[in-house]
This record gives sequence, C-alpha cells and structure tokens, in this order.
Amino acid sequence: MALITLLTDFGTQDEYVGVMKGVIAGINPDVRIVDICHYIEPQNIVHGAFILAAACPYFPPGSVHVGIVDPGVGTARRILALEHDGQRFVVPDNGLIERVLATGAPASVVAVEASAYFLDRVSRTFHGRDIFAPVAAHLAAGLPLAELGPAVDHRTLVRGVVPETHWLHPNAIEGVVVAADHFGNLMTNIDAATIDRLVRRFDGEQIVVELSGRPLGGIVASYGSVAKRMPLAVIGSRGVLEISVNCGNARQMLNAELGDRVCVRVDGAAPSDKS
Amino acid sequence: MALITLLTDFGTQDEYVGVMKGVIAGINPDVRIVDICHYIEPQNIVHGAFILAAACPYFPPGSVHVGIVDPGVGTARRILALEHDGQRFVVPDNGLIERVLATGAPASVVAVEASAYFLDRVSRTFHGRDIFAPVAAHLAAGLPLAELGPAVDHRTLVRGVVPETHWLHPNAIEGVVVAADHFGNLMTNIDAATIDRLVRRFDGEQIVVELSGRPLGGIVASYGSVAKRMPLAVIGSRGVLEISVNCGNARQMLNAELGDRVCVRVDGAAPSDKS
Amino acid sequence: MALITLLTDFGTQDEYVGVMKGVIAGINPDVRIVDICHYIEPQNIVHGAFILAAACPYFPPGSVHVGIVDPGVGTARRILALEHDGQRFVVPDNGLIERVLATGAPASVVAVEASAYFLDRVSRTFHGRDIFAPVAAHLAAGLPLAELGPAVDHRTLVRGVVPETHWLHPNAIEGVVVAADHFGNLMTNIDAATIDRLVRRFDGEQIVVELSGRPLGGIVASYGSVAKRMPLAVIGSRGVLEISVNCGNARQMLNAELGDRVCVRVDGAAPSDKS
Repeated sequence: MALITLLTDFGTQDEYVGVMKGVIAGINPDVRIVDICHYIEPQNIVHGAFILAAACPYFPPGSVHVGIVDPGVGTARRILALEHDGQRFVVPDNGLIERVLATGAPASVVAVEASAYFLDRVSRTFHGRDIFAPVAAHLAAGLPLAELGPAVDHRTLVRGVVPETHWLHPNAIEGVVVAADHFGNLMTNIDAATIDRLVRRFDGEQIVVELSGRPLGGIVASYGSVAKRMPLAVIGSRGVLEISVNCGNARQMLNAELGDRVCVRVDGAAPSDKS
Repeated sequence: MALITLLTDFGTQDEYVGVMKGVIAGINPDVRIVDICHYIEPQNIVHGAFILAAACPYFPPGSVHVGIVDPGVGTARRILALEHDGQRFVVPDNGLIERVLATGAPASVVAVEASAYFLDRVSRTFHGRDIFAPVAAHLAAGLPLAELGPAVDHRTLVRGVVPETHWLHPNAIEGVVVAADHFGNLMTNIDAATIDRLVRRFDGEQIVVELSGRPLGGIVASYGSVAKRMPLAVIGSRGVLEISVNCGNARQMLNAELGDRVCVRVDGAAPSDKS
Repeated sequence: MALITLLTDFGTQDEYVGVMKGVIAGINPDVRIVDICHYIEPQNIVHGAFILAAACPYFPPGSVHVGIVDPGVGTARRILALEHDGQRFVVPDNGLIERVLATGAPASVVAVEASAYFLDRVSRTFHGRDIFAPVAAHLAAGLPLAELGPAVDHRTLVRGVVPETHWLHPNAIEGVVVAADHFGNLMTNIDAATIDRLVRRFDGEQIVVELSGRPLGGIVASYGSVAKRMPLAVIGSRGVLEISVNCGNARQMLNAELGDRVCVRVDGAAPSDKS
C-alpha cells in the first residue's frame, strides 16, 4: 500500500486538509497520509515547487505526492498525474512540478479527466477535496495512471514559472530567494552543483555571497561558523544555498522577501548590482 | 476499525492534541486519527458547530468525531455521545452539535458518565485527554453507545446557540458571518437551499449580497468571475454562501468579523440596514 | 510495533517534519507517528524539557520519543538514546531529557554513534532527518538500544539546564514560568507535590501566588472559580502550577514572559520581591 503526501497552501487553521483525509480514508481506509507542508505562501507556485522537490526524494518509492498551489482552480487549467524517478504526483499544470522535473523527463504524464474517480459532486472552489484527494486515493490503491485520462506530452507542460539561476559573468551566479522557513532562514534557487563549478573554476579565490547587493561574506560550513546574530551563507540540508543568521531570524534581520536577488561571485569581480 | 476525528480550539502549538492521540493509541493501537481542525476560535461554539457540520459528511460511515469547544469544562455541563446519519460524535452539550442535527433528530444520544471508560484521574481542566479521548477510543473499538451512560432525550439538548438565518422580507434573507479561513474567506450561515428559494421566487431579478449593510454585488460562479482584488459572493464548497476577495483577503480588506450581518436580497428591495 | 512521537522546535510551516516522517516510513512502513508538538520556542531547551516530560506518560509503553531542540546541531554534542520508565527517547545531550529523568536514573543510556542506522549522507544542519528519524525508525522496529553506540554513564549527562524550584523561606517556594500555551496560560516549574508540602505545613493559612512580585490571589479549583477576565492560579492538567485568566489570555493580560519569577507563599510571609 503506497503512502500519500499532501503539500498545499491551505494552512492548517481550517478543516480543508482534514476533509481531504476523510475523502481519502473513505476510498482507501488503510493508506498512510503524511503532511509535507500546508504553509506554502498562498498561490506562490515557486515556493511550492521548491519545497515539493526538496521533500519528495525522502519518501518511499511509489509514494503519491499531492501538490495543490492552484490559483487557477475552477478555470480550464489541466490537472496532471505523473510518474517520475519512482514517485507519483498529482498536481495542477502550472509549474508546480517544474523543479521536480529538473532531473529529467517524466516516465509518464496523463491529464486527469476520468470523473469516475472524482467525488460525485465537484465544486468550483475545492478541487483538493473533490478531485485531487480521491484520485490520489485510487492511485495509492493501485489504479494505473493511464486510467485517469489521456497521455500528455511532457513538453506541453507549463514551464518557466520557476526562476532559474544564471551566470552574470564567468565569475558570478545570480539567483533569488524562493522560500523562508519558520526560523527565518532564506532558501535560494542556487544549487550546490552550480556553486561547485564556480569554486573549482576559481580555485583558491575567495567567494562572496550578496543578498540584494549587500555582501554577507563567504560560504561557511555551519551556523556556528560565525558569531551569534551575524549573517551567513551555507549549503543547506536541501542541497541549495541558504542565507541565515546564527541564532537569529535572517528574514527579519536582513529585511528580506521571497524574490530578492542573491549573487554568488568571486571576490573582486564586478558586484551584481550594476545600477 | 473506525476512524476518529478531532476538532478543537486547542491550537497545535502545545502538546494537548498529541497527548490525546497518545491516550487513544494506548487504548486502541490501530485506530486511525484524523485532525479536522484545531483552530476553532477559542471558545467560539458557533464557529465549531459550522466546521464540524461541514466536515463530517466527508468521513467514512461509523467515524467517531470528537468535538471540543468547551468553555464549560470542569462545570456540570453534560458530555454527549450521539449517533446521527451513520456517524458518531462525542461533544459537550453546549450547541456544538446543533448544526449537525439540522438534518433531523439523532438516532440515539447518551450522557457520557461511565467513568470506567475515562482515564483513572480526571483533571478539572483537560477533559479532552481524560474523558473525550478514551471514550472515543473505546467507541471506535466497538463499545456500544449505551455502555457510556443513560439515554438522553434529544429535545433536552442545548439549542439556540447557532444563529439561524431568517427572512427579513419575502425578498430578503439575513444571516451572519460564522467563520473566516486561512485565506480570509468569510463563511456565512446562509445555505444554498435558502438562497435557491429566493432566486426561484424572484426568477430573473437581480440578487444583491450585503455585508454589514454594504453591497458587494451578486452571487457569482467562482473567484475568477470578478477582477482581482474585488469582493464577491459565491456558494462555497461547504454549500453555504461565502464572501471572498479575488486573490485577496476578504476578512482584512472588508474589515469583517465573525458575527457581522449578511443580507441576500432582491435588488431594489428595501436594504437590510433599516437605521 | 512501537509508536514514534515527535517533539521539536521546527514549527509546521515547512517540510521538515514531513520529511522526517518520510524517512521513518521508508525504514518502517507500518509504524505509527504522533506529533507531540513542533512549537517549542526556537532553541528553548527548558520549554522542550517540560513539554516532553508532561506528554510522554500518556503514550503506550515502549513508545520512542524523538525530542529535537538542538541549538548545538553540527557541533560535537552527543545524541543520546535512553530507556526510562518503560519509554524510549532519542534526544541531544543538552538538558532536554532532564525533566523526564526527575523521576530517577534511566534504565540505560547510549551515545548514538552507529552511522549504519543514519541516512547515507548526514548534513550539518538537519540531524532530525539524517540521524534522529532513521534511528527512531530502527528502534521502533526492534533494534536494541545497545546497537546504536557505547553505553553512557547517566551521571555524565548534561544537567542543570532546567530551573529548579527552591524554598525562599520555610513558607515560600520560588519557581519560574516555563511555557505559555495557545490560550496564553502560563505553565510553571512548581509541581503539585511541592505545593502540597507547603499547604500541609501551614494547614489552614491562606496561600498566595505572585507573578513577578505581583499577587494574584490563592490557588483555585478551576478557571470558573474567579470572575471573567480575572487572573487565577490552578494546579493544571500537567500536575504543575499554572497561571491563567478566566476567559482571557494570561500571557498578554499579565504581560508575562517565559522565565518570569513565580512565588507561592503563605499570606503574611515576606513577599518574594526583596528589592
């Protein structure tokens, strides 16, 4: 019996997530359900895309990951069911799966259209309950993906929603803040492999990290590498660059927001703020 | 093995809900527990009554729903166990079950008094742990309702706590805001069937929704029916009228609170604010 | 199959707790996981120590309690696995287990060092995912404690982090506020047994509770013993003195913080504020 995970922007103040679990339990009484996170910033697909990709590799093969950050609910946007890297996903076609698919093309994709697997009455505002939950419950119970609807060419999926890092110069990478956590740590879209390439290219030279044009120093090994209340950059547990304050809240203390620009460059290179 | 749901005003910051699950697991190791919601506004029975009624139909038959919004804990208020519409409930007798019973009289009701099914030591302040959790665990394990205490005439249950909608005129219904969700959407106590009656009676005439005397326009099909940042009224996924702002927070933007008056009327009819 | 509980300061906004559950499910697909609480004040070991000790007695024997309030993550601090009073614990060696061990010496303690039971790659910043979760999953599946690492003399554990109550005079006990809950109730470190000793010693005399030198009145039986919006002191459901406001938020209305001084004294005795 597969496990189902839930990642949404619903919060946990309301009955929405609980009702989805009730629907799942009604179809598939024994399936295990794990909440990944329900505090994706409302309608922030980029935030959701990064958290989904960071979390799913830690779940058992065959898990069914339901991702709902869905400002288009009730419009004609597609709902997708996918298999990729041994995991399954049910998501709106709006870029939420984009970061998961950074590792390659999915094994298969279908458009979820077979209303036999939906609740009898589908509302205009709560597809999580009426479509995503029952479809996930059926998948976890063994329903083949192809039963849910027609195959979809993965090249037609919505793309380009998630900001990519890019090389400003041969000696500078630019990315953005994509999430802030409970502790105020700032997650960026700059992954460890990209930074490694920069470091190897300029072996021995000092690397500097900037947030919104403001230098924060080099990349350190752990929070304790700097004095308390001081900012730092670190390759975090998700394999991407994170910006923190030792024993402090980086989001507040650095006055940072999702979308803020982050630059990693060789010290002495042109600063990223060209204005 | 039945499923147990939990709906409380305990929040999730503390160990209270976790401890209830520990007690349940000690009695009934295999039962599945689903959190409906723990952010009922503290001691707001009306809020709890509407969320409980909105959520419970989505759970499998035989589920045991524990509802705890209980300002009278430690006083002589009764605790009830009920069967209704194929579901079971354990709740204080304070109106929390009132909205569930809007569909008719319950199949059976008992007063929970059999302390053999409580924890050995019952505190004055945490009946959730000491009474509700163990009683629900026993019910889910198959204990007949009648074992918990004497039968209660359902006509003696506390009623009148939940505000009813009423007809101001033949062409105007008045209700109130009973909940606000994570997104700031406002749930009212005006159900779809009542609105349908108004619409059919004045077929073809324009319907207007007012919040605290302020007109918001008609009832639309979905959030996207109005421009971004504009207010709207919609029959929400719970089958009642909800007031929202497209891509915005209605509670904040409309400066609304639980209890605010909502009027649905035929355009041109006397406005609800008679002052 | 044992149950695993989780108590952390991670919050529930992020994917951290969900990812730990994914790791556990990958090792031990059928184990039940219960969240005790994820809102320990960030890095507040004292808060965590009291909540862990208050919660764990309500779980079935053999439960594996994972406690992570771990400002030393990534440093050389030990991770401990313990058996005590029929329960098992996996915690950093920083005082978090101190309050649990107030009931006596643990049956056994080991230092968690056997990396065969960790994830393959251990990050510097997220031992919850990489060490605590997989170790707990293996313990719950039946791994003997001794397989995790060398035995540790319990007298070498970090102690003295949790503030003790002490007798100011034969007629006055001093403690501190150690937690505040969702309702604003203030939990102290003064347990019922200590207060009983004071009460018996001065049988018939009036007892007064002070918060930060400000008298609040005696110890009452329940919230409803005082008028609405009035402060009160009560032996709470955790068996320690708690300070509340009837139908109000004590933390806000009494302007209280964790660490604030609380005194229980015989009326007429010297007040605790000696300045």
